[in-house]
Amino acid sequence: MSTGKTALVISAHAADFVWRCGGAIALHASLGYKVTVLCLSFGERGESAKLWKQPGMTLDRVKDARRAEAERAAEALGVHDLVCLDLGDYPLELTRADKDRVTGVIRQVQPAFMLSHSQYDPYNTDHMYATQVALECRMIAQAWGHNPGEKVLGAPQLYLFEPHQTEQMGWKPDTFLDITPVWDKKRAAIECMEGQEHLWEYYTRVAINRANHFKRNSGGQASGRDCKYAEGFQSIFPRTVDEL
Amino acid sequence: MSTGKTALVISAHAADFVWRCGGAIALHASLGYKVTVLCLSFGERGESAKLWKQPGMTLDRVKDARRAEAERAAEALGVHDLVCLDLGDYPLELTRADKDRVTGVIRQVQPAFMLSHSQYDPYNTDHMYATQVALECRMIAQAWGHNPGEKVLGAPQLYLFEPHQTEQMGWKPDTFLDITPVWDKKRAAIECMEGQEHLWEYYTRVAINRANHFKRNSGGQASGRDCKYAEGFQSIFPRTVDEL
Amino acid sequence: MSTGKTALVISAHAADFVWRCGGAIALHASLGYKVTVLCLSFGERGESAKLWKQPGMTLDRVKDARRAEAERAAEALGVHDLVCLDLGDYPLELTRADKDRVTGVIRQVQPAFMLSHSQYDPYNTDHMYATQVALECRMIAQAWGHNPGEKVLGAPQLYLFEPHQTEQMGWKPDTFLDITPVWDKKRAAIECMEGQEHLWEYYTRVAINRANHFKRNSGGQASGRDCKYAEGFQSIFPRTVDEL
Amino acid sequence: MSTGKTALVISAHAADFVWRCGGAIALHASLGYKVTVLCLSFGERGESAKLWKQPGMTLDRVKDARRAEAERAAEALGVHDLVCLDLGDYPLELTRADKDRVTGVIRQVQPAFMLSHSQYDPYNTDHMYATQVALECRMIAQAWGHNPGEKVLGAPQLYLFEPHQTEQMGWKPDTFLDITPVWDKKRAAIECMEGQEHLWEYYTRVAINRANHFKRNSGGQASGRDCKYAEGFQSIFPRTVDEL
Amino acid sequence: MSTGKTALVISAHAADFVWRCGGAIALHASLGYKVTVLCLSFGERGESAKLWKQPGMTLDRVKDARRAEAERAAEALGVHDLVCLDLGDYPLELTRADKDRVTGVIRQVQPAFMLSHSQYDPYNTDHMYATQVALECRMIAQAWGHNPGEKVLGAPQLYLFEPHQTEQMGWKPDTFLDITPVWDKKRAAIECMEGQEHLWEYYTRVAINRANHFKRNSGGQASGRDCKYAEGFQSIFPRTVDEL
Amino acid sequence: MSTGKTALVISAHAADFVWRCGGAIALHASLGYKVTVLCLSFGERGESAKLWKQPGMTLDRVKDARRAEAERAAEALGVHDLVCLDLGDYPLELTRADKDRVTGVIRQVQPAFMLSHSQYDPYNTDHMYATQVALECRMIAQAWGHNPGEKVLGAPQLYLFEPHQTEQMGWKPDTFLDITPVWDKKRAAIECMEGQEHLWEYYTRVAINRANHFKRNSGGQASGRDCKYAEGFQSIFPRTVDEL
Repeated sequence: MSTGKTALVISAHAADFVWRCGGAIALHASLGYKVTVLCLSFGERGESAKLWKQPGMTLDRVKDARRAEAERAAEALGVHDLVCLDLGDYPLELTRADKDRVTGVIRQVQPAFMLSHSQYDPYNTDHMYATQVALECRMIAQAWGHNPGEKVLGAPQLYLFEPHQTEQMGWKPDTFLDITPVWDKKRAAIECMEGQEHLWEYYTRVAINRANHFKRNSGGQASGRDCKYAEGFQSIFPRTVDEL
Repeated sequence: MSTGKTALVISAHAADFVWRCGGAIALHASLGYKVTVLCLSFGERGESAKLWKQPGMTLDRVKDARRAEAERAAEALGVHDLVCLDLGDYPLELTRADKDRVTGVIRQVQPAFMLSHSQYDPYNTDHMYATQVALECRMIAQAWGHNPGEKVLGAPQLYLFEPHQTEQMGWKPDTFLDITPVWDKKRAAIECMEGQEHLWEYYTRVAINRANHFKRNSGGQASGRDCKYAEGFQSIFPRTVDEL
Repeated sequence: MSTGKTALVISAHAADFVWRCGGAIALHASLGYKVTVLCLSFGERGESAKLWKQPGMTLDRVKDARRAEAERAAEALGVHDLVCLDLGDYPLELTRADKDRVTGVIRQVQPAFMLSHSQYDPYNTDHMYATQVALECRMIAQAWGHNPGEKVLGAPQLYLFEPHQTEQMGWKPDTFLDITPVWDKKRAAIECMEGQEHLWEYYTRVAINRANHFKRNSGGQASGRDCKYAEGFQSIFPRTVDEL
Repeated sequence: MSTGKTALVISAHAADFVWRCGGAIALHASLGYKVTVLCLSFGERGESAKLWKQPGMTLDRVKDARRAEAERAAEALGVHDLVCLDLGDYPLELTRADKDRVTGVIRQVQPAFMLSHSQYDPYNTDHMYATQVALECRMIAQAWGHNPGEKVLGAPQLYLFEPHQTEQMGWKPDTFLDITPVWDKKRAAIECMEGQEHLWEYYTRVAINRANHFKRNSGGQASGRDCKYAEGFQSIFPRTVDEL
Repeated sequence: MSTGKTALVISAHAADFVWRCGGAIALHASLGYKVTVLCLSFGERGESAKLWKQPGMTLDRVKDARRAEAERAAEALGVHDLVCLDLGDYPLELTRADKDRVTGVIRQVQPAFMLSHSQYDPYNTDHMYATQVALECRMIAQAWGHNPGEKVLGAPQLYLFEPHQTEQMGWKPDTFLDITPVWDKKRAAIECMEGQEHLWEYYTRVAINRANHFKRNSGGQASGRDCKYAEGFQSIFPRTVDEL
Repeated sequence: MSTGKTALVISAHAADFVWRCGGAIALHASLGYKVTVLCLSFGERGESAKLWKQPGMTLDRVKDARRAEAERAAEALGVHDLVCLDLGDYPLELTRADKDRVTGVIRQVQPAFMLSHSQYDPYNTDHMYATQVALECRMIAQAWGHNPGEKVLGAPQLYLFEPHQTEQMGWKPDTFLDITPVWDKKRAAIECMEGQEHLWEYYTRVAINRANHFKRNSGGQASGRDCKYAEGFQSIFPRTVDEL
């Protein structure tokens, strides 16, 4: 089933898209969206502690391992296209040419919506930098004078997915998505992250508690619809609607 | 046409519902919603300057005039029920019994969504007080032990409609509603407000400029859908969705 | 073991102190603090849905049941004194005399620190009102001219304990407390809340995930101390220290 | 010298106007303004510790002492009219009738600008309550239907004067006033506050350091005008100008 | 007429100065200020959609057209000096040498005040980058060790002019300027922007509604001075005054 | 006396560490900490006005003078290691290699806590840039894949020391440190800053007034511990504790 609709995730490190929006990816894939995941780096230096504790580890071997994990997770989620730019992490830094590649992906995908990190993260400056890049490249993709002749971008929403330690990041979800129908896929993708096994149960607990929030906001004790697993998102831009 | 759906506007003064969400009222009425408007006061002391400048004016005559205007405006918009509590303005103050009446209306209406003022307004403390009352009574209406046996309230969204001088109120719209199909009705309702003729064109300009914002956020220069008149709203609670 | 130290919890409804700071209570009791819990109401109207769904329920029976639960929970946690003011809920409203009673308790306890709700809560206006009362009565307790001759209050910290849906409340924890040594007591107290069984596992998950945050901030992957259960708190006032 | 211009200070307790805007009062008095100071209470219970430590002290004696101090300070500053409403402190609470009295004073004075406390103060809820009252009564004073026939109020700026521990109050000054020409008067008024001698030097240091800020913002090391004593203020409302 | 006073506008793209502060420019020119406008780019790639939709368009032709428009608009407004740095847009990026050029212009102009964009703009990262550059170069221009011997800068105010969709940018005006006397000039400059005709009426409506805000804040219904067109500005730095 | 504990100050310009945290440095040195101070620049261009006003001054002579002052101040405070990276100021800009050097220092020191500037400073963009660098390099130092084999960093607190004009920087202290025992050392270090003599008394007044805040928060009029000089700090990360 394909609807012709598309979505784009911009992930600073290879594993971010799994914990933070794996449910949204799998759900929209099941709805017929083609979902592209753009990993700016593999998180090879900063988010692969378990691998680095092994003797004789090298940067390339870490990258290979992380890429393999990301590919398996992407497959589990039904990702249409996994693009790994391998731009380096801790710190993540993009040149003008790198940004042009990101912009190119955005234009190619023409996403109905985009997903990226919170706008503030004192623990991980790569995360907030990735969102800054997402906003900058979204703007460039809208410019008629950037690579004239290419199809320019409309105005897709940018959703910020859930960071670790949400309150420290000033992240406030305004949208809860029911991911119950695809939870098995998200859990399968999570289990592909062998190097971060301590987070498997952590993010399962997050999903269950977010389902509680879903129910509170869909009706509460009076009429709240059931929901077993959910994800939360913060919107950057206003919505445009024909009914409140 | 009736869908069985309902909505509730809580307006500090009689005219507020016209300028700030007249389009939303008329649009949802046209979609089959039964929309109830609850005016806590007539704005008789603080928002009726033109009347008070007439010789020999009395409080009752001002109230009558304002009520008549509100009724005509409500009719123009297709309001299902206009409830005027006549609680006094400048300042607006509710007793526990008054709050019980408001709670009673909320329970009776069982709104799919509610509309009220911004949470901060240094120019007009009645406005922020009305929103505080809306939140408090929404909470009471959800309590199983308040008038046991009555149907308890679910978890309707509370939208904050557009205040005057938005930036001073810290109001940030996250939802733009296309009111083009019902603009004529909103304009007709606006023209019922004889005492505030200086605002007729003001709020027409607001609606046209909000339509520009609607287009920017629905696609911009690439694919923005046309829209001639719009209204903006800020949500207090998160949404719960099955698709982003 | 008694250190002569004391602490005071101001809880809007009878169960709040269990979910939100039961660990802090049990831990400080085990450290020799005498912890007083002040319940402003029983949550009889707004937080007792399960009871109200039983046929023939009355307000008094609900209060009795909630009081009994609170007493059992307080015993499980090692609370020194449980004070139930029975001031009513949904909405909670205090007269000047009620505030004098709260002030009296504060002066009697002379707490080393106080605990109460978040400062903002659009879902539950009782919660933010309780914190407003806590600050007001803390101030009165410091006044030399309030009941002259009584011992005036120093400057205890006011910690805000964790609300439900933290991000919606603008609550940001700045202090994580390791409650692993007393987890069994908190869980036992939680299980006293028979009417809210759906929250038992919810707040167990919260405690486990807060332990993850504890470890992140105590050293992370390099040297984070182990911790299995934790609670988070936001401070209202600055700390005064002799070493950073 | 009189310009016909007027200003109004709304002070929660009798001494607040001295520490926080004594310079502004004296300066504008010297410029020909008639400055009215409205003390809602004497600070008799909460800000008179030194008096209460004397044996046999009574509430009336404290009030008398604080009133006398306020009167001497007002005289030193050149206050046109000192109005003491004696409404009680810790907590300060105004009835509807009390608010009508405040509104009456505002209308009588017809101030070019008003001065009051910061909008947030967790140490002292009387302070933020006074500002809330100032905004509410300013609004009522603008209402044509409040005591029809009286002269209605225009739109005076409300300046928030400097609180103690500014950063904890979220107070941000946007206006620095050079009070060098009247510093002697402010110091004389400060020394009228016999019960709070520990604050004399404190607020002298504040005035000198604010002068440093004045110079930084009037030109800095390149061309900053000299200034020896200054006060800072935060504006609630926008300014209207004919030149930037 | 020349007063010797100067002002400086730092505009990310060629047209920004027209919509956002054309009135301030024309008004101060009429008051005898020499106003310099510094356009960092022409907006050639991102703000020239209409031109790019013409067949055979090239970057140079777009720049020429935009420059010509900017020159005509500058002339209409009475700009003293229009400096176009042609640094590229979408994204705008300045090297150290570029920043030195901006600093040089600031020092040469020695502005009494500066004008630039809002500090946050998720739609247009060039805008917030321009303000960041304005602050950085203002700081460098104040450094005695930067090009020693040149006249160092004092401490000019930086006003942030009105962005599109103000609430989304967190922009809050604290100053309204009456531009009625020069409205014809601003409208003439606006009409120079042939490629953005859809914005002519939009910004005319903005100016009329800002005049309403001017009147509200200069006296309201009681004594508000008339004003037909206005512009709003947010100040970054505090003011220093001799009278409130 | 050495405890094996360490601390690290990251200072944008050579003198910042003296005014802003000289007391914290001297106090912790006296407690046995080895305190390293990392000066990213000498403040040679932007914070040495007095030197530049001397005839024939050169950049190298300014640097030498500022370095000498910093060394004397460091000695007065008991700094263990003063590292001057000489990266240039106004503006301060770090390459990837420069950041690696900073990261290297962090790893070498393995600080129990770090100190740097406020996160916002419109007057001085070097200051906020230094904090951004501190957070970025702290993150890199925690990465197991950055220079594998080196000891990775734990999770030290980052305290933001007091900026000039605190309210303009959005800086809010949450921790007051009593520096009375080492005040003489801080004053001696301050007097090493010959080029900024106008600030000696300014920061002495700050220290005395911060002591007043210390006392207010440690007990106030009832039981506040005495304190004559203090410094304030804002924490970026939550604390982890075993007792509230």
